[in-house]
Amino acid sequence: MAGKDVPVSPLAPKRQPKVPAVPGVRFATAEAGIRYKGRTDVVLVLLDDGSQAAGVFTRSKCPSAPVDWCRENLAQGKARAIVVNSGNANAFTGLKGRDSVALTAKIAAKAAGCKAEEVFIASTGVIGEPLDATKFESVLADCAKRAADGPWLDAAKAIMTTDTFPKAVSRKAKIDGHEVVIAGIAKGAGMIAPDMATMLSFVFTDAPIAAPVLQALLSKGVKGSFNAITVDSDTSTSDTLMLFSTGKARARGVPEITDPNDARLSGFKRALNALLLELSHLVCKDGEGARKFVEVRVVGAKSARSAKRVALSIANSPLVKTAVAGEDANWGRIVMAVGKAGEPADRDRLDISFGAIKVAEAGARAASYDEQAVSDYMKGEHIVVTADLGLGRGKATVWTCDLTKAYVEINGDYRS
Amino acid sequence: MAGKDVPVSPLAPKRQPKVPAVPGVRFATAEAGIRYKGRTDVVLVLLDDGSQAAGVFTRSKCPSAPVDWCRENLAQGKARAIVVNSGNANAFTGLKGRDSVALTAKIAAKAAGCKAEEVFIASTGVIGEPLDATKFESVLADCAKRAADGPWLDAAKAIMTTDTFPKAVSRKAKIDGHEVVIAGIAKGAGMIAPDMATMLSFVFTDAPIAAPVLQALLSKGVKGSFNAITVDSDTSTSDTLMLFSTGKARARGVPEITDPNDARLSGFKRALNALLLELSHLVCKDGEGARKFVEVRVVGAKSARSAKRVALSIANSPLVKTAVAGEDANWGRIVMAVGKAGEPADRDRLDISFGAIKVAEAGARAASYDEQAVSDYMKGEHIVVTADLGLGRGKATVWTCDLTKAYVEINGDYRS
Repeated sequence: MAGKDVPVSPLAPKRQPKVPAVPGVRFATAEAGIRYKGRTDVVLVLLDDGSQAAGVFTRSKCPSAPVDWCRENLAQGKARAIVVNSGNANAFTGLKGRDSVALTAKIAAKAAGCKAEEVFIASTGVIGEPLDATKFESVLADCAKRAADGPWLDAAKAIMTTDTFPKAVSRKAKIDGHEVVIAGIAKGAGMIAPDMATMLSFVFTDAPIAAPVLQALLSKGVKGSFNAITVDSDTSTSDTLMLFSTGKARARGVPEITDPNDARLSGFKRALNALLLELSHLVCKDGEGARKFVEVRVVGAKSARSAKRVALSIANSPLVKTAVAGEDANWGRIVMAVGKAGEPADRDRLDISFGAIKVAEAGARAASYDEQAVSDYMKGEHIVVTADLGLGRGKATVWTCDLTKAYVEINGDYRS
Repeated sequence: MAGKDVPVSPLAPKRQPKVPAVPGVRFATAEAGIRYKGRTDVVLVLLDDGSQAAGVFTRSKCPSAPVDWCRENLAQGKARAIVVNSGNANAFTGLKGRDSVALTAKIAAKAAGCKAEEVFIASTGVIGEPLDATKFESVLADCAKRAADGPWLDAAKAIMTTDTFPKAVSRKAKIDGHEVVIAGIAKGAGMIAPDMATMLSFVFTDAPIAAPVLQALLSKGVKGSFNAITVDSDTSTSDTLMLFSTGKARARGVPEITDPNDARLSGFKRALNALLLELSHLVCKDGEGARKFVEVRVVGAKSARSAKRVALSIANSPLVKTAVAGEDANWGRIVMAVGKAGEPADRDRLDISFGAIKVAEAGARAASYDEQAVSDYMKGEHIVVTADLGLGRGKATVWTCDLTKAYVEINGDYRS
């Protein structure tokens, strides 16, 4: 568990990026001993006064206690502290779970010098086990003292479960000619990970953007990124993606943004979306047992919504994913996945390509089909599958990873 | 492929049942050399004049050419011959596929002495490869000469792809005091199997039941059997389940049945449903790489429809299936799968049991939780998972198998 004895994903970035400080954001990590031994398992993030928050959460009908807590407190839009722990998801823990979250918030509020409702909490790890929040007591006070504006990778490491590498990225953008910074961390791997270890991600900026605007940007930004990735179709009880603004860039002349349609936001939106996309791709690339990163493009659908459903049907198909693992350009399985999606599709108009190589057209094997060329292509690390439904102009892209024996091993052996 | 070098599923029946002849049904198998060498790959079934037919087919939007053919010809309700081949699914083969089906029907009609539209066809195996129907030419004429009323296992073997054991079962029933027989064969494994090798099943009875009645019985009967099993959530392009009646029992005094609500049908319905259930369970038990047979019961849902969706969400979850493979009573993953189903669910009312052992109640770990007892239970071959949503009276049961490394191996290495 927690990546022990599991080699780092071959899809991990060759070099970790340098992530700059975000003015107004400080953090520290610690070993609270929640479940793991000899590694950090909690991070406390402190946000300067005036920070704003937005969030999107799991659609699960059985959300974790921390998800309930965050949803409730997001209404007031302010944030001063974030506590994230790994090792225990505090999910399906009943009344005890709620008490544990409340106690965590109380401890963090004391350490940060803020109100409990200004504390946001996320937990990842085993579910159904009560989380003993008293373990945070001494730890968080100490974290608050040590809090600094880096290094981000330490924070990313503390929240890992079966992740094999920490995920931290950044972007710079200009608002009205003034530079702002965006930095974020994530852990995965997608909706999988043992005991639903959860997808968690926290993104920060010094831009002075009001909470409702942050929420609008985030809700839109996830559509093409975190809501377009899948590792195994299993949705966690704890998925949490939050975006915080400290507003510190105000001091450098960046104007206050209170309207999501403000034209001065265009560069920031692009940078934010690029950051969300990169983080979400890193989650896919660290999918349990992943050896290949798979991009599924569906074009020619009746609508964008329909295209996305077909793309997810392909990306979630165990037969497609095992074929990619076996470096097999098995386009018959793509046909199958298009057919089972339940969306408008006409077998006799369907074209399928792997990379730039067309393998099927108009409902049959392509005349130009070259087994050797496509076999060579399948040996790569980044596989692009395109299905052209030939019906309309709807399109969508989703990302996933292959399904290998290591996935079964990690998830079948987790508790034994 | 075709089960070569793959050990027989440990869930296979210890003894193959003796399946009696069905008056009016004769068949023979042959080696047409479609794809496999040194094994039978085609079966011709001859039905006496007056036989009636019903069928249910894949919901795929990309059905195979034989599925299109069967759907079209079912309208007239009569059947005289069935040709089933393995090794090539004749799916996604465009115009060539249609021509190939037409030629197969022509050859079979000649051999059987009937009209082409009285021939039903099913194909299973690789998709996208043109099927050379001329290979049936000499073979089917010879089959017609050799056709006999048994043994069923030979027919079941000829249609296997990655199946590790042939599947043939029977039941007896009484209609108006007179005995009739029902016998059927199937191949799987579910909606999985390499290159969508497809679920195919053919069931025969000598009862004089009209086609519209057969169709009503079959459409209803699949709901709790073939439409309640899943191996990996992948729907084939070729799924075909057909029910034929020869009417030969008329000679023994069995009355003609022309109304699906005829009270004299009750015993037959029970027997037919039991046979469909047994066949569908055999398909699950031969799911690729299966080591455990998993029964998922959902009770207390808002409706039966809702219960079935939740049950399928559990049964299709890779995390649930790998946990079962690892003999891990990981009820947290059941919570996750209930939560992601999108159906009404209340975390704090949810109870979960493995076998008779309650592991979670009212949204938290059961007070009586005994890890050792549940671990012992998970070592068994037949695992029953029950989720009580505590909301209403809707219930449903579905069946699946575990997800093992062998599944990935079989499906990742198929063509390499």
